[in-house]
Amino acid sequence: MDYKFLIRDIELIKSQKAIGTDKGLAKLGDGIVNLTYSMAKSMYLTKNSPNNKILRTGVKVSKKILATALKNANMRNFAKSRADAHDFADTAEALVAYVWLSKKISLDEIINYLLKNLKGDLNIRNEEINSAIEAFTNLFNYIKEFLPKI
Amino acid sequence: MDYKFLIRDIELIKSQKAIGTDKGLAKLGDGIVNLTYSMAKSMYLTKNSPNNKILRTGVKVSKKILATALKNANMRNFAKSRADAHDFADTAEALVAYVWLSKKISLDEIINYLLKNLKGDLNIRNEEINSAIEAFTNLFNYIKEFLPKI
Repeated sequence: MDYKFLIRDIELIKSQKAIGTDKGLAKLGDGIVNLTYSMAKSMYLTKNSPNNKILRTGVKVSKKILATALKNANMRNFAKSRADAHDFADTAEALVAYVWLSKKISLDEIINYLLKNLKGDLNIRNEEINSAIEAFTNLFNYIKEFLPKI
Repeated sequence: MDYKFLIRDIELIKSQKAIGTDKGLAKLGDGIVNLTYSMAKSMYLTKNSPNNKILRTGVKVSKKILATALKNANMRNFAKSRADAHDFADTAEALVAYVWLSKKISLDEIINYLLKNLKGDLNIRNEEINSAIEAFTNLFNYIKEFLPKI
């Protein structure tokens, strides 16, 4: 199915801020981020389970993780000026929604990208946070090429 | 990508209750339901916008909507005995995750299925609830054929 008509207005402007500060995109991106990370985490835990136990889980990715990853990927410019952590996280979600809606990346690819970048013991809170930050940083660096340069 | 290994354990039992009462499946299903409904709602609002405005939104589908739709589709048997609305909603989410993980339905198909079943003015709270209940009832009736009979 083609969802590109949902970003027709943004394609007319196509600036970093038009994409990164769109509230509707952020809301859609929230769902994409949570589902893809939940799938990647479930797959990672299952693949690394010592007793071959299958582990399915659902996670809400924290604003802190998304905001830090966005800054690590040097993508502050997509956010509004004087953005706080909440704004940066919204921007991160909006960018993910934009590249997905414009068919530059599929959900399978996002899941796979996060999965291959996860490491450590995700059952230890701090290890999960650091691993998730790194996985999202890599994802954001990867999608940069599909986003406007200014 | 093949996610079927995430339901290998359930495939061994493959009963209505093994699927419908799995907490991990419900958590993954929560993400699927929210993202697909958000997409369907965004597309519906955009297609029916009087001034051709593009509307993007993200929604958390309420437990009440999912529980009612599950009961309307006569699928109480998938839930645990003495289930309350919260349990029925979890069951609904688990069923959606199961059919998606087993590749019987794609996210595009779920989005499209919900979209074509939406009607009325979704900006009026009660109209949206009724429309969403009907759309999910139809979705659950549709996925029934991919689920165990007992």
